[in-house]
Amino acid sequence: MSTEISTLGEFGLIDRLTREFPLVNKSSVLGVGDDAAIIAPEGDREILVTTDLLLEGIHFDVRYVPLMHLGYKAAVVNFSDIYAMNGTPRQITVSIGVSSRFTVENIDAVYAGIKLACEAYGVDLVGGDTSASVTGLVISVTCLGDVEKGKAVRRSGAKETDLICVSGDLGAAYMGLQLLERENHVAASSKDPDFQPNFAGKEYILQRQLRPEARKDIVERLRAAGVTPTSMMDVSDGLSSELLHICKASGVGCRVYEDRIPIDYQTALMAEELNMNLVTAAMNGGEDYELLFTVPLTDKEKVEHMEGVRMIGYVTPASLGAALVSRDGNELAIRAQGWNAFSSEEAPAEREENPTESENSK
Amino acid sequence: MSTEISTLGEFGLIDRLTREFPLVNKSSVLGVGDDAAIIAPEGDREILVTTDLLLEGIHFDVRYVPLMHLGYKAAVVNFSDIYAMNGTPRQITVSIGVSSRFTVENIDAVYAGIKLACEAYGVDLVGGDTSASVTGLVISVTCLGDVEKGKAVRRSGAKETDLICVSGDLGAAYMGLQLLERENHVAASSKDPDFQPNFAGKEYILQRQLRPEARKDIVERLRAAGVTPTSMMDVSDGLSSELLHICKASGVGCRVYEDRIPIDYQTALMAEELNMNLVTAAMNGGEDYELLFTVPLTDKEKVEHMEGVRMIGYVTPASLGAALVSRDGNELAIRAQGWNAFSSEEAPAEREENPTESENSK
Repeated sequence: MSTEISTLGEFGLIDRLTREFPLVNKSSVLGVGDDAAIIAPEGDREILVTTDLLLEGIHFDVRYVPLMHLGYKAAVVNFSDIYAMNGTPRQITVSIGVSSRFTVENIDAVYAGIKLACEAYGVDLVGGDTSASVTGLVISVTCLGDVEKGKAVRRSGAKETDLICVSGDLGAAYMGLQLLERENHVAASSKDPDFQPNFAGKEYILQRQLRPEARKDIVERLRAAGVTPTSMMDVSDGLSSELLHICKASGVGCRVYEDRIPIDYQTALMAEELNMNLVTAAMNGGEDYELLFTVPLTDKEKVEHMEGVRMIGYVTPASLGAALVSRDGNELAIRAQGWNAFSSEEAPAEREENPTESENSK
Repeated sequence: MSTEISTLGEFGLIDRLTREFPLVNKSSVLGVGDDAAIIAPEGDREILVTTDLLLEGIHFDVRYVPLMHLGYKAAVVNFSDIYAMNGTPRQITVSIGVSSRFTVENIDAVYAGIKLACEAYGVDLVGGDTSASVTGLVISVTCLGDVEKGKAVRRSGAKETDLICVSGDLGAAYMGLQLLERENHVAASSKDPDFQPNFAGKEYILQRQLRPEARKDIVERLRAAGVTPTSMMDVSDGLSSELLHICKASGVGCRVYEDRIPIDYQTALMAEELNMNLVTAAMNGGEDYELLFTVPLTDKEKVEHMEGVRMIGYVTPASLGAALVSRDGNELAIRAQGWNAFSSEEAPAEREENPTESENSK
């Protein structure tokens, strides 16, 4: 099926896209269909708000990102921000701008992905905006969440001697992107019309790039263990960049150990295959949507064997700066090497390789 | 000054754009700079959420829309949605995608307009996202507001015999757009390098298009008079379209009188100059951001002399449909002729002239 969007019109399209989203949260009083949605917060809870703008050609490339995955990811990256505040995502609004290249079925696929994400995380779609676009696909998602009053975890609470922890593993999403770009180039230059990209044994890094998950489980595990992080954020731009954010916001420094950085086997294999520096990719790759957090030293026993959590270093006085301690004991200053959508030349590389050279196609 | 955005980078740009926005609302606990903003709602209030996506080439044309006005309007149209729910706007998030055509000073101008709007309406900027764009300027605004619990006014509450009221006057923003487009065409074809558009005596319709206001005053006036509308929405797509929304949501019909539609003198003059049907422009022009609302017949005395409010008709049983009663007493079926960004051919014109022929450049 290939239906032109103009056959539905704006209101017809909104109806079609949003009718399959029943409200599940008690706080969602009124969803799509009025001037604004109505949310009834519980008395003892605060509301969290985060927003992300995804632009075709900057944040995604429809040549190799399936639209359903794109919808899923657009929602999940916002949920991740709410979890990173120690909150629970509850509602999203989704605005979408669509050029005439896209069919109704294409947009259905984006919303099918959003719906999957909403179901997986218990979030309600409560509003949005739909428009034509003269250029590419534009997706803007805003997520509301809630958290017990006073229990939101900011970036600014890290204290000297706190342990620095990270969930899951790092660099896989970035390596997945490298793989997708390579196979896309190969496909474009192939004369074989039946060319199939070679993704065997690389499913994990692809999934990390195309369909990331938010670490709801980690937030719940910490809560169950009675651990309240002193600071927390999600790893979207890369560990280096996020460590510097926490250091700056908290007025501290840090030491992080190279041999403690969690890296998956597929990530390591891919880096080797592409002749890239693995630790640089893990430190600066971005889009991992893992949680980076600090806990008091007194919580060490609670986190050191926690599933999916790795202690990677500790917080120092600000005067000591932020450094990565290499396997041979050298200290390398951590520099912001996260994804910068405005320039590929700005931040100096921490090491020689620059894993963000293709950052504009992220 | 003309500074390339890449010289600041994403975080530098965010810092620059948001540092002049102090928080004024008690409920704004934490603003820009973390994974999410924190809002502390008062216990007896509900939260309202609305969002709008503005795309260059669809919703605005930078050839004749000053960027500061664009920022102002992007904020105010969201405030208008909150007022249309009988609420008070409190916080906004602003996401912006910027192509390399734009300088830092250009984006400063957009944010200067947003700041003016926030100051005028007492709203806090609490978050957002900033990105490069490979195409045009993209602005996505989400607004949170609050309202006393249970006091939000939806579109669905209109009852038979209710009076239909509208604030201000209609069609002016649309006529302002026609004027801007005409002068832009004249300028483009002029051989005189010093060509100046002729806007004398047309300031009101220009201001209505370029720098609309949200009707905070009307909501306050109704509240002060003890009038709670049974239904309400703002007029963004055109009166015809909005009347049909209320009729559909409320399961009613309506009769609206042509000679009661409020139209400003400048709007009428411009329509005559352009040889356009005035009532069609007022019914279908859109972007007026006036409030359309219904009140019980028992409130007639309270609204009939209320400043800035005009009674234009009444609610009927659904079986009677929605109709405009012309000056000569004929009933013309009201059709959705509002702005449809996906097609200029879709909705049949209510009359012969079609004021939305240039809708894609709105």
